[in-house]
Amino acid sequence: MHPTDLDAHHLGQALTLARHAIGLSEPNPRVGCVLVAPGGRQVIGEGFTQQAGGPHAEVMALRDAQARGQSTRGATAYVTLEPCAHHGRTPPCCDALIEAGVARVVAAVGDPNPLVNGQGMARLAGAGIRAEWGPPDLAEQARELNIGFFSRMQRRRPWVRLKMAASLDGRTALTDGRSQWITGGAARADGHAWRARAGVLLCGVGTVLADDPRLDVREVAVARQPVRAIVDTHLQTPPQARLFDAGPSPVRVYTASADGAAAQALRDRGATLVPCPLVDGRIDLAAVLADLHALACNELHLECGPTLAGAWLRGGWVDELLLYLAPMLVGPGRPLAELTALPGLDAATRWRFHEITPVGEDLRLRLRR
Amino acid sequence: MHPTDLDAHHLGQALTLARHAIGLSEPNPRVGCVLVAPGGRQVIGEGFTQQAGGPHAEVMALRDAQARGQSTRGATAYVTLEPCAHHGRTPPCCDALIEAGVARVVAAVGDPNPLVNGQGMARLAGAGIRAEWGPPDLAEQARELNIGFFSRMQRRRPWVRLKMAASLDGRTALTDGRSQWITGGAARADGHAWRARAGVLLCGVGTVLADDPRLDVREVAVARQPVRAIVDTHLQTPPQARLFDAGPSPVRVYTASADGAAAQALRDRGATLVPCPLVDGRIDLAAVLADLHALACNELHLECGPTLAGAWLRGGWVDELLLYLAPMLVGPGRPLAELTALPGLDAATRWRFHEITPVGEDLRLRLRR
Repeated sequence: MHPTDLDAHHLGQALTLARHAIGLSEPNPRVGCVLVAPGGRQVIGEGFTQQAGGPHAEVMALRDAQARGQSTRGATAYVTLEPCAHHGRTPPCCDALIEAGVARVVAAVGDPNPLVNGQGMARLAGAGIRAEWGPPDLAEQARELNIGFFSRMQRRRPWVRLKMAASLDGRTALTDGRSQWITGGAARADGHAWRARAGVLLCGVGTVLADDPRLDVREVAVARQPVRAIVDTHLQTPPQARLFDAGPSPVRVYTASADGAAAQALRDRGATLVPCPLVDGRIDLAAVLADLHALACNELHLECGPTLAGAWLRGGWVDELLLYLAPMLVGPGRPLAELTALPGLDAATRWRFHEITPVGEDLRLRLRR
Repeated sequence: MHPTDLDAHHLGQALTLARHAIGLSEPNPRVGCVLVAPGGRQVIGEGFTQQAGGPHAEVMALRDAQARGQSTRGATAYVTLEPCAHHGRTPPCCDALIEAGVARVVAAVGDPNPLVNGQGMARLAGAGIRAEWGPPDLAEQARELNIGFFSRMQRRRPWVRLKMAASLDGRTALTDGRSQWITGGAARADGHAWRARAGVLLCGVGTVLADDPRLDVREVAVARQPVRAIVDTHLQTPPQARLFDAGPSPVRVYTASADGAAAQALRDRGATLVPCPLVDGRIDLAAVLADLHALACNELHLECGPTLAGAWLRGGWVDELLLYLAPMLVGPGRPLAELTALPGLDAATRWRFHEITPVGEDLRLRLRR
């Protein structure tokens, strides 16, 4: 293989490792690292980011090399994100790489964290290590894998993904609300894989009252469950909601009524109530996003009814639509989202198809602005 | 190349030729023929079906070989549909192949015409010609190219394709009917390519009154324009409708009011009025299909508003949905089709995604039962 192809190959391996950190490393980015012996062919260590507070990918790979009895002197480290140069909950990865005698570091993409921001590569170079960037397509993939982390670092808010499931004619349920099942089993499992990526799963009180959801990740294995969140202006969530039983993760309730008996009943069930200002009689979603940012949420996964979905959309807060389209026509039924009538079609927000994938008998569409 | 691969290669060439007959050969099937010299490598003649009454693909290929000064003795003929054995408007192609001294015929798929139906291959074999079938995937492609002809021959009705263009939330227009433009220019041009395939383009009087469409093929070049048809129960179509000006093809009006002054006014404009029975106050679509079958229509292309689209769908007459999905959410607007409320989601007609193709910024979905 040409040296450049070898670099792409090993960075690709590191990216595959990084994907194992989904549902594990949050709120830390999903990073993979491959250590290759001098000569460029023999992989001597592999690692990916562990749970927050645990070791990062580079340290895991160095430990792996040690466990395999391999020397890291003169090795090349392939890493999907620029190694950190600052003391967080763990010591900087740059120092670990320098100490291990690594000769060269190839990183897929720069760390958007203002505390790192090129300093990692500079620190490595300052220590005499050849610090280089990989090819642009792998930079894009590495960024994409951490789109929520990049959003949090660069925009100071989570990446907002709105999940919906509808028929070809845009119906999410019959008029009486029955929606089991518009999409098939494969789409439901796939939806849980997207839930697993999220730091927080959010729905409205309408969904709690109608479906009593557990709002957890069930159909795929995860090391940690996302935080659950409800938007509940007038605190109508019943304390006996299943959300509080299932209990694999904290529940946050965004409300205008954080005082009183109803609030206390929910607190008694373990909920954290977050008082929010109202805008036009509705919870200010900017306040919700600010709270989620303070929680270090990278990806926010919305599974709401048409009212709340409409509010997120009308506010322009949604970064990505995750739409499962079922091959049927329903006729009279519930809409995807309650939106205000457009003055003209040119006033509609234009999305673009980002990814189109058949999932079972359904179609998964991902759209972005 | 292995002999089997050579066969697939030449049949593939014949299929490419056959596609040139779209918009030309109707109501005859789209057929291509490639003549290959003994030895299997040199193509000596190519042809595809001409307009109805004109020569078929085999005769065109034989003439092409003659024009090139090539002998057809001992040649192999690759043909995408079993050669005809009966006298239609032209003499049987089998006889032409036998006369030309062809040694071998490889056909992609059998002719569904009950007048041919295996007799073509039998007649060739009876004349000492090796008559063989090509590989199954090419049979499928050849059948697909002539799906309307197969439908007409085997089901005695046209293949019914319902074209729709909608937003992600299933809106075809704003509530006031404005629909320009939900989908982009590429999708509109693509829609005309599908119109060009059809024997008949049909809409309802509602569309005539609202949009005054020309209902012709404009954005792609065609040798003949499809017949235009309107479903107009109470004969509300104005005689000054553009449909009658544009005039590239006959206009047929399906109505319960084929007598009187209004009817005469449309006849004066060149329309053919077809009296139809009513079912529940609406034109009986089975009668429309029977008339279209009598006209030898292979593919019926529907571009209707929600009322008529709903009627075709509710009747179970639609074989294929051709749905252009625009990457936008419209909110309040017109539905794809007026359907009756389902008793439950399991009562919905299940379609399957047959083909998914991005077209410009939109997505083209083709679905079948």
